[in-house]
Amino acid sequence: MSNYDRNKRIMLSISKKKYLKSLYNKKFRLIENKTLIEGVRVINEALKTGFKFDHIWIDEKFNNNDTNNIFLINQLKDKNIPFTYEKNKDIKSISDTKNSQGLVALIDTENFFKTEKENFFDKIVILDQISDPGNLGTIIRTCAWYGIKTIILSKDSSDIFNPKCLRSAMGGHFYIQNCVYWNYDEIINFIKSNEYHYYCSTMNGEPIENVRIKNKWALVLGSEAHGVNQKLFFGHKLSIRSKNTIESLNVSVASGILLDYLMKN
Amino acid sequence: MSNYDRNKRIMLSISKKKYLKSLYNKKFRLIENKTLIEGVRVINEALKTGFKFDHIWIDEKFNNNDTNNIFLINQLKDKNIPFTYEKNKDIKSISDTKNSQGLVALIDTENFFKTEKENFFDKIVILDQISDPGNLGTIIRTCAWYGIKTIILSKDSSDIFNPKCLRSAMGGHFYIQNCVYWNYDEIINFIKSNEYHYYCSTMNGEPIENVRIKNKWALVLGSEAHGVNQKLFFGHKLSIRSKNTIESLNVSVASGILLDYLMKN
Repeated sequence: MSNYDRNKRIMLSISKKKYLKSLYNKKFRLIENKTLIEGVRVINEALKTGFKFDHIWIDEKFNNNDTNNIFLINQLKDKNIPFTYEKNKDIKSISDTKNSQGLVALIDTENFFKTEKENFFDKIVILDQISDPGNLGTIIRTCAWYGIKTIILSKDSSDIFNPKCLRSAMGGHFYIQNCVYWNYDEIINFIKSNEYHYYCSTMNGEPIENVRIKNKWALVLGSEAHGVNQKLFFGHKLSIRSKNTIESLNVSVASGILLDYLMKN
Repeated sequence: MSNYDRNKRIMLSISKKKYLKSLYNKKFRLIENKTLIEGVRVINEALKTGFKFDHIWIDEKFNNNDTNNIFLINQLKDKNIPFTYEKNKDIKSISDTKNSQGLVALIDTENFFKTEKENFFDKIVILDQISDPGNLGTIIRTCAWYGIKTIILSKDSSDIFNPKCLRSAMGGHFYIQNCVYWNYDEIINFIKSNEYHYYCSTMNGEPIENVRIKNKWALVLGSEAHGVNQKLFFGHKLSIRSKNTIESLNVSVASGILLDYLMKN
């Protein structure tokens, strides 16, 4: 009996659906250490990086003639990832998107990231009070693009497993190895005791193209409304030069421009 | 009698509210050539660039002790911009945001941009099928930051006066001078007959840091799902190098990284 046939028999029960939907609430996500991810591209990125899923529910109307979709299903079979086909209305009920692509996966978040300090990499992004999950996700996607593997968030930042953050990260989470939520003292102690060169992004710093970049560094980005908190506002101040009087760039766009410089110099 | 007192007497009628709310519908926006904008920062950017509003409705609970708010109100008076104070529930009813900042302005979009080709600038951004209004707004904000004044959109792109686009542009619209929706032939003819150097962003182009940038150029960015349409896929292909196998960057982040290079080289 093929995986497909075997899996097809299990159905999404009402209690299971209720459980899955509860994961859209941050409180339950934190208690359960589980979250849902959706969509072909996000799931493809997870497969590329060798991630193991708890389970994937697939719309019975999922297009099995599309080349990309066939490739994805074959990978699930090859990698022995449990999946079942479900009714369209059941997939809709556990999906968080308006136009579901017909794939919803349950993943374990408990050991998703390595949090031990000794595993941290030499190039770190620190995010201070990034409260918009869309911006946070886009920054994670950008970090993944540039090979940043360690992210430190201030305690009051948005939840990295928020569905909107997962969606806008487009699978970027699977490329990050360390991610922690720390208070300011913990961040400062870590940066100083491990001798990271500390770059602080601000409106009135040195234009980044004038800066000689060190090998071991941490870049801190603050919220658009408040900038970097006073406690983290030290070190080498960096800016992106504007040609106008407009107040600021979007923080995820700024992260892209700064990381492009930092990773190439 | 001060402006403040005079304006205070006019009230938001039911029919006026109905009219204003209809502008959240694209069809009515296009018929009326009007749109609503919200928030202190967006309205501040408009004031900085000398923009004239039709009317601004302000929440009677708007904090008149805050320095920034006082400055804003004083500017409205100085510039003779008609504004009225309204009940909190009326402001909420005409606002498109969950947490309204208490300022909603009606603006005229008919002559917002100069659309005559002879007014176009030497550095142009072309956006092909950008369908997400949040991404479109963030790109406009980034264009404003880098002093790009001319934007050409393909016919099927998102509406530049969509409320979500206006919100994520954070006032960027007021720095753009020309903006048009053209079909592919119109775009190609314009680029070729005006001898713009044409940069096409793609996944497999030349790394942008290796490219010598010309003075007169047009940069085309495509949608994340489909890239640049085949019709516009010519000229000098540019890419942003990745350190990973992740599929792509967010298009607004990509626009920031590319514009940073193009404007500095």
